[in-house]
Amino acid sequence: MEINLVSDTVTKPTQEMLHAMFSAKVGDDVYKQDPTINALEEKVATMFGMEAALFFPSGTMANQVALKLHTQPGDEIICDKWSHIYLYEAGGAAFNSGCSLNLVDGNRGMITAEQVQKSINDPEFFHAPLTSLVSIENTTNKGGGACYEIETLKEIKQVCVQNNLKYHLDGARLWNAMIAKNQSPRQFGELFNSISVCLSKGLGAPVGSVLISDAKTIKRALRIRKLLGGGMRQAGYLAAAGIYALDNHFLRLADDHRRAKEIGNLLQKLPWIASVEPVETNILIFSIQSYLDEKVIIQKLKEKGIHISAMGHGKLRIVTHLDYRQVMHEYVLDILPKIVI
Amino acid sequence: MEINLVSDTVTKPTQEMLHAMFSAKVGDDVYKQDPTINALEEKVATMFGMEAALFFPSGTMANQVALKLHTQPGDEIICDKWSHIYLYEAGGAAFNSGCSLNLVDGNRGMITAEQVQKSINDPEFFHAPLTSLVSIENTTNKGGGACYEIETLKEIKQVCVQNNLKYHLDGARLWNAMIAKNQSPRQFGELFNSISVCLSKGLGAPVGSVLISDAKTIKRALRIRKLLGGGMRQAGYLAAAGIYALDNHFLRLADDHRRAKEIGNLLQKLPWIASVEPVETNILIFSIQSYLDEKVIIQKLKEKGIHISAMGHGKLRIVTHLDYRQVMHEYVLDILPKIVI
Amino acid sequence: MEINLVSDTVTKPTQEMLHAMFSAKVGDDVYKQDPTINALEEKVATMFGMEAALFFPSGTMANQVALKLHTQPGDEIICDKWSHIYLYEAGGAAFNSGCSLNLVDGNRGMITAEQVQKSINDPEFFHAPLTSLVSIENTTNKGGGACYEIETLKEIKQVCVQNNLKYHLDGARLWNAMIAKNQSPRQFGELFNSISVCLSKGLGAPVGSVLISDAKTIKRALRIRKLLGGGMRQAGYLAAAGIYALDNHFLRLADDHRRAKEIGNLLQKLPWIASVEPVETNILIFSIQSYLDEKVIIQKLKEKGIHISAMGHGKLRIVTHLDYRQVMHEYVLDILPKIVI
Amino acid sequence: MEINLVSDTVTKPTQEMLHAMFSAKVGDDVYKQDPTINALEEKVATMFGMEAALFFPSGTMANQVALKLHTQPGDEIICDKWSHIYLYEAGGAAFNSGCSLNLVDGNRGMITAEQVQKSINDPEFFHAPLTSLVSIENTTNKGGGACYEIETLKEIKQVCVQNNLKYHLDGARLWNAMIAKNQSPRQFGELFNSISVCLSKGLGAPVGSVLISDAKTIKRALRIRKLLGGGMRQAGYLAAAGIYALDNHFLRLADDHRRAKEIGNLLQKLPWIASVEPVETNILIFSIQSYLDEKVIIQKLKEKGIHISAMGHGKLRIVTHLDYRQVMHEYVLDILPKIVI
Repeated sequence: MEINLVSDTVTKPTQEMLHAMFSAKVGDDVYKQDPTINALEEKVATMFGMEAALFFPSGTMANQVALKLHTQPGDEIICDKWSHIYLYEAGGAAFNSGCSLNLVDGNRGMITAEQVQKSINDPEFFHAPLTSLVSIENTTNKGGGACYEIETLKEIKQVCVQNNLKYHLDGARLWNAMIAKNQSPRQFGELFNSISVCLSKGLGAPVGSVLISDAKTIKRALRIRKLLGGGMRQAGYLAAAGIYALDNHFLRLADDHRRAKEIGNLLQKLPWIASVEPVETNILIFSIQSYLDEKVIIQKLKEKGIHISAMGHGKLRIVTHLDYRQVMHEYVLDILPKIVI
Repeated sequence: MEINLVSDTVTKPTQEMLHAMFSAKVGDDVYKQDPTINALEEKVATMFGMEAALFFPSGTMANQVALKLHTQPGDEIICDKWSHIYLYEAGGAAFNSGCSLNLVDGNRGMITAEQVQKSINDPEFFHAPLTSLVSIENTTNKGGGACYEIETLKEIKQVCVQNNLKYHLDGARLWNAMIAKNQSPRQFGELFNSISVCLSKGLGAPVGSVLISDAKTIKRALRIRKLLGGGMRQAGYLAAAGIYALDNHFLRLADDHRRAKEIGNLLQKLPWIASVEPVETNILIFSIQSYLDEKVIIQKLKEKGIHISAMGHGKLRIVTHLDYRQVMHEYVLDILPKIVI
Repeated sequence: MEINLVSDTVTKPTQEMLHAMFSAKVGDDVYKQDPTINALEEKVATMFGMEAALFFPSGTMANQVALKLHTQPGDEIICDKWSHIYLYEAGGAAFNSGCSLNLVDGNRGMITAEQVQKSINDPEFFHAPLTSLVSIENTTNKGGGACYEIETLKEIKQVCVQNNLKYHLDGARLWNAMIAKNQSPRQFGELFNSISVCLSKGLGAPVGSVLISDAKTIKRALRIRKLLGGGMRQAGYLAAAGIYALDNHFLRLADDHRRAKEIGNLLQKLPWIASVEPVETNILIFSIQSYLDEKVIIQKLKEKGIHISAMGHGKLRIVTHLDYRQVMHEYVLDILPKIVI
Repeated sequence: MEINLVSDTVTKPTQEMLHAMFSAKVGDDVYKQDPTINALEEKVATMFGMEAALFFPSGTMANQVALKLHTQPGDEIICDKWSHIYLYEAGGAAFNSGCSLNLVDGNRGMITAEQVQKSINDPEFFHAPLTSLVSIENTTNKGGGACYEIETLKEIKQVCVQNNLKYHLDGARLWNAMIAKNQSPRQFGELFNSISVCLSKGLGAPVGSVLISDAKTIKRALRIRKLLGGGMRQAGYLAAAGIYALDNHFLRLADDHRRAKEIGNLLQKLPWIASVEPVETNILIFSIQSYLDEKVIIQKLKEKGIHISAMGHGKLRIVTHLDYRQVMHEYVLDILPKIVI
């Protein structure tokens, strides 16, 4: 049995999802004539109580277009030092938008209103970039799936409003946050100028993200998506998977969270583990004893068919997901204490 | 019967193609672990006798990445005034690559070595942009599906080599050119630094283009694709359609060409037609008598279930494709002479 | 006697101008504390009846900042095919602003309202760049110093207003136009969103251009100037030359125009001249007989101490200016007919 | 007596420098025909033992062009978190070069080889930007005029060589470092791919910086300078001030350093001072007691004619320079202890 806990991006469609894809009606989305994509966009916009949405081939593109929509070249974006837009989007904020990042030293990838306030450059001081956007990630990827309280997000919103800043949410794993914190999409829709959500991580669709905003902004997004080459033709097959996933895989994220916590609880008792970070959703980050080598641990687990990833500095990461089923989970819980490090 | 002759991008997968898609083995292509995408890339690279290839969500992105790979910001690209990269990629050469275009006044979208030579800026004269790339389109879209002789492309290649210019081929409809001119992929692979080919126009796959080049350039392309957000996860479903299309829909392009020519021959005899441009492939451009209105013609045809598009200045365009079947063709040939303008 | 008719950029300050420069009061202009620069900016803004102005180290930077101020990356700018911003600013529109140029086939570098209207892309068609700016050059450099009627500029303005386009004037030689056509700065100030004027061509100051616009735009220009590195410290010495030039060298441009015309009249009678373009200001373009070589002509004149420049395709250019004095002019008129070609 | 200790950029030319400027021979530097600029460039290149140099209207432009020369859009630049290129160049790295910054948490603006090593992204991991440049500032501005040991710079150089990174020195106040540490220009010329030096801070010229590098890079710099609009015409007047300053104001920087130290020593004894940072060159940063307000201190000093600047967080800055003469210094030393806070 090969068990891939490296990332929740590795899931493959279920037979039911494949059937939904296979049965989809498609059209040329470049002319906005793909009925399934149109349905997905409308469905997601409605969920969040926002005006419009747009389908993207990747979460990176959805985020990059959002950054572009809210900034001018030369502007500065405030975000956590561990943000996906800083660490894992290849420098796109500078490449696509000509923007600098002002990296906040947050807690597990989460920042506060006070930190945002302190990071804003005086708009009259033109020797520094003009601050124009705050970008939040929820749940945090490198922060170990930590998620924000709505109250904190509201406080940051206040700072944005007072300082004429736009407010973007990278919600690649927002579905997990909503399940973990019992929050609704509309609570986020009310706060942000734009939200990107991913269909392919926790939800298990093969491809795609959706950007949600007001109608005027989404119209502009269409042009930027075209500029980046993100306009696809009969992509309704992918959108159908997204619709199926929203209808069928959203609530089950609770299983992923429970399993991650159970693994976390178990790890805390093992002698080769130094510490386990709090597990809020489906990401579990733990540190090994300082005399151990990450590579050795990864190899030992691999020998048992369990694949996890290293984060450097003695940290390892486990991510639970749709394709990590109960039978696998029981095997993992059984085998972990038996591994001799 | 609704017959869409607006573009060859409107085709939908056949049952056989759908079957191939949903039987595909997939993986996370962001980690290059999707076996079907890997197979498609290898297949296309091998066809063209080039080292490597990369799958893209759109032809626009494949072209835009190619322009970026071969230029520096501030450089100038030589292309025909009717090029897709100028007219229909939203200004991407400037947006993504910071490059200017030097538009050549070609013939039906095709340019000559002499025109290229004259368009090169003196590299020592730094007040003008540095010319660094020649971009060819074959077949030409706005040029009515015209296609180059290999000899002409070789002559331009010579100018590129002598002047240290890169040489890109926008081959969105290159498959049509090869069928029409009895040329092989390797003849193009030998000449160009990079070639983009589309899977979704003549070939009839729902989504996707492939960029082909040397291994080092494709490695760099992976980074640029990531920057633009073109990295998709389990996109093997789309790649499977591409593989199926290459195996089954390539040679049948001859049918599209024959049908376009037959319509062309018919149109020449009709009184409301001023002239018909030479039909080389699957695109047919014709002009109506100057006293007529394009919109009226389009409406008259629409009433008979035939959809075509206007190009402005009294020109109309018909594009044949996979979903334009023989029974439709016979209907069109029958109905056209009966339309009272 | 060496007589440089290559360009009006080669002039050197007169003793009086030098005296004005080195008597100037200066300060740190980065903090806007240079009284002479402030005085120059206010003087020029007032001349044009506009709200504010900003000093720049070059006309290229003044133009490039203007293009940036009026556009978004991906937008398209309409201008003549011979525009300085296209031919001689190194591809800066794409590099600095990410913008494409839509080149109009004008007459001697001048375009019409009708041509502008036809060049505007449909803003709903997002596959083409969004047209957002019209940039005019007056007088035209490559167009041989031709200058616009105010009426033509007003017609273009109308098209801009109707289509929500900004309107920029590259007035590197606007002073010459005003003298030639008896126009006032305010007539231009009323029409344009921004105007760049040069202090170092006809006016004879050593360095500098000024961008003029409304106060809000100039405030934004300060930030863009900083981004490009155009903020200078105690540059009041240069501004003093500009003030002196405006006060003392403006009206004398009529001398340059008269001399250019006199040379033009003479050239028309010479057997080795094929044609002389109309001379409106201080630029004179003429063609030599087709059997002659530009380089030979330039060499023959050089032997007599007269330096002029070639424009390619059998065209040569003469530019009169402050340092081309009457005694030189008489020598040129005397020697030209005696040159044996 | 008004004494400006806000910055060393506020100096005005001496009579001797003005005379040198006034007597300069000039030409059109856009055609590289200004003999004084050519002489300055050659002089500076020779001082540093490098092949070539280029004059710029500002240090910001010299730095920005250097960043562009050594990077590709999407790349990442390693620098200290207090770098001028991050804090005070308006976000230019992203705007002009499309580059991200990787900010190192250095000591007084200075970073180590070990920190650089740790900041380099794995070049195979294309989800993160490609690291391609290390940019050093010496002396550090916000770091209070701290300066590097040559040994440290050599260690960083090693990391650059091993990792294929370029190495730029922002030497806006490098002259001060050389005086303070008894270092020679050639020691820096041997290490860096490019060095920018400022003529207008410690040296007291009114305008200008020089970028020094190998001949091939400087040739490319000419094109980038043109793109940014940094090409000036008869700017030899400014270059003459630079030559004069190098010949006459370099060694006297020791006076500025001595005076800064003397003020520092005095401040340490005053009751309202919490701490004084080490004074190495002409910048002196000190903190006031936490119960005091920066603005009050600045106001109290202003009443005595002494102008200094606040840095936030209870820090104040004093900068000595050419125009801060001995008589002023004695006044300051006399008055400081008498101020009642």
